[in-house]
Amino acid sequence: MVSNQKILNVELGAKSYPIYIGSNLLSQKSYLENHISGKQVMIVSNSTVAPIYLDKVIKLLDKFNVEVTILPDGEQYKTLETTNIIFDALLKAKFDRSATMIALGGGVVGDITGFAAASYQRGINFIQIPTTLLSQVDSSVGGKTGVNHELGKNMVGAFHQPKAVIIDVDTLETLNEREFSAGMAEVIKYGLLGNVDFLLELEKNVDAIMNRDKNLIINAVSRSCEDKANIVAEDEFERGKRSLLNFGHTFGHGIENVLGYGTYLHGEAISIGMYMAAKLSELEGNLSVGDVERVKNILTKAKLPCNIEGEVSSENLIKAMSIDKKAIDGNIRLVLLKYLGDSYLSDSYSKENFQQVISNFCQ
Amino acid sequence: MVSNQKILNVELGAKSYPIYIGSNLLSQKSYLENHISGKQVMIVSNSTVAPIYLDKVIKLLDKFNVEVTILPDGEQYKTLETTNIIFDALLKAKFDRSATMIALGGGVVGDITGFAAASYQRGINFIQIPTTLLSQVDSSVGGKTGVNHELGKNMVGAFHQPKAVIIDVDTLETLNEREFSAGMAEVIKYGLLGNVDFLLELEKNVDAIMNRDKNLIINAVSRSCEDKANIVAEDEFERGKRSLLNFGHTFGHGIENVLGYGTYLHGEAISIGMYMAAKLSELEGNLSVGDVERVKNILTKAKLPCNIEGEVSSENLIKAMSIDKKAIDGNIRLVLLKYLGDSYLSDSYSKENFQQVISNFCQ
Repeated sequence: MVSNQKILNVELGAKSYPIYIGSNLLSQKSYLENHISGKQVMIVSNSTVAPIYLDKVIKLLDKFNVEVTILPDGEQYKTLETTNIIFDALLKAKFDRSATMIALGGGVVGDITGFAAASYQRGINFIQIPTTLLSQVDSSVGGKTGVNHELGKNMVGAFHQPKAVIIDVDTLETLNEREFSAGMAEVIKYGLLGNVDFLLELEKNVDAIMNRDKNLIINAVSRSCEDKANIVAEDEFERGKRSLLNFGHTFGHGIENVLGYGTYLHGEAISIGMYMAAKLSELEGNLSVGDVERVKNILTKAKLPCNIEGEVSSENLIKAMSIDKKAIDGNIRLVLLKYLGDSYLSDSYSKENFQQVISNFCQ
Repeated sequence: MVSNQKILNVELGAKSYPIYIGSNLLSQKSYLENHISGKQVMIVSNSTVAPIYLDKVIKLLDKFNVEVTILPDGEQYKTLETTNIIFDALLKAKFDRSATMIALGGGVVGDITGFAAASYQRGINFIQIPTTLLSQVDSSVGGKTGVNHELGKNMVGAFHQPKAVIIDVDTLETLNEREFSAGMAEVIKYGLLGNVDFLLELEKNVDAIMNRDKNLIINAVSRSCEDKANIVAEDEFERGKRSLLNFGHTFGHGIENVLGYGTYLHGEAISIGMYMAAKLSELEGNLSVGDVERVKNILTKAKLPCNIEGEVSSENLIKAMSIDKKAIDGNIRLVLLKYLGDSYLSDSYSKENFQQVISNFCQ
């Protein structure tokens, strides 16, 4: 049954763009047609998503000269080499600056495609069709694109805003539970870092959302995108407030880096990272024991991990965190909670408290 | 003997930056110090330039944490793989978003370094110290950065403006005559495409410039940069007027592509390309036979080629030109001369005239 539809606008002056959120959007040509200016369209997808949704999207594009690039599925392919596969395809098809790229898939496809679009002939248009909960609420909003380097995550990339984002929540029907939970980590993040009303709503609805109530999902995706869009509009290039969106991420990226990308899903690592940041916030005197329990409860209800499983030494974790891009001249800056629903960026927390949290979570 | 010094400002709002042009600039710390904000500095140079100027530049940076990456010399190394060598070095040095890169060398070093700076952690600061005439008057001004792909030149890149450009014409003393001539091609280009006064001046002074009269060189570099800076300020992202700077380039890139990068120097290929464009402009009824002779004369005085030496078929040249990024949906757009000192972008010239020019220049 079709439910509510929403349109958000990310306000970035000449680079503003709409986010369409709803059900059954991939049956309507206008969403795509209205945002493609040339004739040439390159769809980039992966070997998991393409068999399910590619034909559906191609059917919407009968007015265009469409080419397709299918990438292997997995974070380990989010590399400069994979980006070069897309450049090969664009050049073999003789696509010029008027071409539009469409990213059809999760965050990895979106990030690589966005970076390829940012760099091909110094920048062409692209449209995001995110098909995972994580990419719908996170990576498809805000224009961050990029690939990993063996020495660090997202170390190579560009700020490149899409022309439109089309979020059809029906695509979540084929998403497995583990991936869905990973997306919920980012949804919960918006509540924790800056929106206590949304947090309360999520605490009430998390079980129904996990049971895939479509209206509640549209609402949760929409509120998440709205929170992110507002922050991005204020601070596109992450010189200030946008850093708050990294809540849980410096810990999380460190965990991913030490265990190797792919051991945890990104959202799972962020879940552990948010819990670690909540624990540090407690030691810093901001949160009560009960607050931290609430954080653990909602993450657990969303079937997310709160502890690191696997061998990680304190030393290696700190080393991995210090190369993370939030570091300025060597200091590890972290997003901590002031209280549930408000956060701040800090590099002046107590080193002892930080060490204690790291020790408690490492084996 | 020290001669005149000039400061130009490229007007791009928040991205505006100065170009310093003069003699003995690499002996003064302030030019660099005033444009570096963090502590971390990565100098990128190549195996030809580094032995001559690297120590001199490092001496200017005693307040900073300086790392160096030396690339092999040559257009064939202007690739994504080489860019990755720079990312490796930045990450191994744990450089963060506050780092500044310095490109010390010719156009290849500048283009790769600029693209690395554009992409590292989604964009860090960089400064250009161009050491060849070509890079001083062309690639160091305007923010175009990028690398080649085996299927086309400059196909991967970004618009990323430097914080400053420091042009010390003393570096030209170690430049061989062939490279100097290649730079003169771009100098002459500014006269031909939009500045008849400058063209007349060059026709008068070309011999003295070729004899390395330093004051005349400073003047020629400065006028070239000024013309380019004015055009870039009007049209940063090449949606209109900036295309005129491609005068001679679509032919030239085609020649480079067919013969293989490195057969001709870039400026040499552009010289042939400008002469071909002048010939087409004559067939289109814009230039007189005498005008085209003047074009040939000044290029010849600058010791530049006007004809393709080497086997190039018409078919291959057209194919290579049509993949060039100035093509829109398959049509080859060219910059033609209205008269000496004025140019326009056209895709409505006569196909027969175009074919005739191609045939006359191909073997």
